[in-house]
Amino acid sequence: MTARPGEPHRLLIRDLAQLVTPSGEGVPLRGEALGEVQLVRDAYLLCEGGLVGDVGRMKDLRLKGDLLEVDGRGLCAIPGLVDCHTHLCFAGDRVDEFALRAGGAGYEELHAAGGGILSTVRATRAASERALAESVTRHRDWMLRAGTTTFEGKSGYGLDRKTELASLRAIRAAGGVPTFLGAHAVPPEFADAPSYVEFLLAEVLPEAAELAESADVFLERGAFGLVEARRYLEACLAFGLTLRVHGDQFTESGAVQLAIELGARSVDHLEATGEDGIRALAASGVTAVLLPASALFLGRSMPPARRLVDAGAAIALATDFNPGSAFCESLPLVCSLAATQLGLTPAQALSACTVNAAHVLGRAHDVGRLAPGFRADCVLLDAPDWRYLSYHLGGDVVSSVVQNGRVAWARQS
Amino acid sequence: MTARPGEPHRLLIRDLAQLVTPSGEGVPLRGEALGEVQLVRDAYLLCEGGLVGDVGRMKDLRLKGDLLEVDGRGLCAIPGLVDCHTHLCFAGDRVDEFALRAGGAGYEELHAAGGGILSTVRATRAASERALAESVTRHRDWMLRAGTTTFEGKSGYGLDRKTELASLRAIRAAGGVPTFLGAHAVPPEFADAPSYVEFLLAEVLPEAAELAESADVFLERGAFGLVEARRYLEACLAFGLTLRVHGDQFTESGAVQLAIELGARSVDHLEATGEDGIRALAASGVTAVLLPASALFLGRSMPPARRLVDAGAAIALATDFNPGSAFCESLPLVCSLAATQLGLTPAQALSACTVNAAHVLGRAHDVGRLAPGFRADCVLLDAPDWRYLSYHLGGDVVSSVVQNGRVAWARQS
Repeated sequence: MTARPGEPHRLLIRDLAQLVTPSGEGVPLRGEALGEVQLVRDAYLLCEGGLVGDVGRMKDLRLKGDLLEVDGRGLCAIPGLVDCHTHLCFAGDRVDEFALRAGGAGYEELHAAGGGILSTVRATRAASERALAESVTRHRDWMLRAGTTTFEGKSGYGLDRKTELASLRAIRAAGGVPTFLGAHAVPPEFADAPSYVEFLLAEVLPEAAELAESADVFLERGAFGLVEARRYLEACLAFGLTLRVHGDQFTESGAVQLAIELGARSVDHLEATGEDGIRALAASGVTAVLLPASALFLGRSMPPARRLVDAGAAIALATDFNPGSAFCESLPLVCSLAATQLGLTPAQALSACTVNAAHVLGRAHDVGRLAPGFRADCVLLDAPDWRYLSYHLGGDVVSSVVQNGRVAWARQS
Repeated sequence: MTARPGEPHRLLIRDLAQLVTPSGEGVPLRGEALGEVQLVRDAYLLCEGGLVGDVGRMKDLRLKGDLLEVDGRGLCAIPGLVDCHTHLCFAGDRVDEFALRAGGAGYEELHAAGGGILSTVRATRAASERALAESVTRHRDWMLRAGTTTFEGKSGYGLDRKTELASLRAIRAAGGVPTFLGAHAVPPEFADAPSYVEFLLAEVLPEAAELAESADVFLERGAFGLVEARRYLEACLAFGLTLRVHGDQFTESGAVQLAIELGARSVDHLEATGEDGIRALAASGVTAVLLPASALFLGRSMPPARRLVDAGAAIALATDFNPGSAFCESLPLVCSLAATQLGLTPAQALSACTVNAAHVLGRAHDVGRLAPGFRADCVLLDAPDWRYLSYHLGGDVVSSVVQNGRVAWARQS
């Protein structure tokens, strides 16, 4: 039979052309290990109680008791994808701005002209909490169809107490890993970044810290400087949140050094990072989260992925899904960009958006690999070789998605 | 009701959020006209006998007799997309080569090492005619799901009499517009390009000309030089074929001047074209076919689209779908690349892959616009604004596809 939504809890996916999984115990993969994946041909995957029970070759399969079988012939199984950097909680869109930019206007120019992040803030503040929750589940479902079974979601389009907290609740309710990004932009009702940060820490952080797992800041010219970023992150750390940093997207601004000093999980973007930053990251435990869809969407230069990997840094890949600078929820497309723009092999890209992304989210014990005891999250690719994930640019490669051992989405055949 | 495959022949798509179509009578759009599209809000589209019967605003709709209605609420209609440059007839894949290139090897390097086009030629020659036909219909169906209702297909992976003719038959049988690309590469059994061209003209062209509408040549260092290209194209012209030229992909090689001199329909690629070539094209009737997915796939620089448009040249967009340098059948992704990499607005991109592409294929009287008397080919986008075609990077924007007034494909909802 074919995989269909709503199946029972013991599931055998059999006769898979290939099953592939990264390794990666304990710490994020780096160096040679990033590109080393385990490949099983003519494989099966057994899911029990929502977890991976067993993985192996068909010739070694010993059936035990009742189970639902899924025909994997002609398909390849990879772990469910992990998107560790998204801004999926917003109302409205930025298609007008997109069309203007395509015709020649620059990002910072549009931002200065009243477009940019603050236009989405206006739409998001005007939306009801229910509308916000619906936007998050709609975007989550888009991601699921593209193979993402674990996602992070940031607040940051509210910038007031009510909307920031509503955003975090919506992300959590949709099953996402919530990140408090109050320090995304300075809203118009504040005179400057320092006074807005004081408001955030006094009025929003105490409750945000109950809802979020991490905190993030947009450290960039025109957003938050090094002094305010440090003040914000140290306060969030004291409330028990792990740390992320948006850094070096347009200019090198000290984000790498701050992330390392504060023991952040990651520093994200890095399009503008130079050799010193690369060396510092390689010597640190901070993961470099690369967002090539964002660089492509803005028509800017790509982050120095190859040099980061060669230097020994841990990298992850994510979509940066958001309405302004990366209206893209597809990690398969990100894997294609990784191969064609970043110089990452399909295996390196797979590790970067599964096990390493899971490390960034503190979920590496649970998701990102197809190994016994891990959550039974898997993507079935309609392809004769799993590397079509990167190779089939913009292709409709995701055939079905298994989440917690159940078929959560299956393409019409 | 919702659109579903296999509907009867009189179809009303009603309550569309938007319906958009380029203009373009007689000659390809250029200059300001390229970006001018007609937009109807709260629209309907009536299809009768496989043709567009009428287009208008819902408030002006007068129902006449029995028809099947499709609910267009929340959807936008655009013309069926026209892909005027594809190499969809091949066997095998090039995923090994892709992975090697991602790890650092160059295209010409892989070609010299026995990979490249000739590896696909080996696989294609080894396939049965039935297997080739199945590959063409499989790829055509991929294209259809991405919104392409008219496609060109080139031979060029046979390079022998039998396989070139089988390829053209397969493309024609699948409903494609066939182009004879015998001069794609020099196969190993020939000592040089001139002797292979003489073979093509004597042994293949007479029958190929019965099957194909156009002829094409790969004019490039390592493939065919100016002398052989001219000899081949002039002979094909004498057999009644219209002309296309692959030119300036890696090096400027006189393709633009040759195309203009011979009155070719198009010159395609142009990544390496400089100011002289741009000026010459702008002053000519030859359309510049731009293939940004190919440039992206190979990690090379983009063609000078903005400068071509500003100079007044006619441009079209296509996928270049092929297993080696553009494994991408998605014109929506090409429209996103056009906006983010080429500086084309969503409206310019739409005109370039509908009406202007139809001109390249000699079909502009029939397809590429939603106007009375045109073929009733249309894409319904699952989006509040038709510009999501470009804006939703890698998104699942195509909701359903109408071809000849019938629903040819509809996404699972």
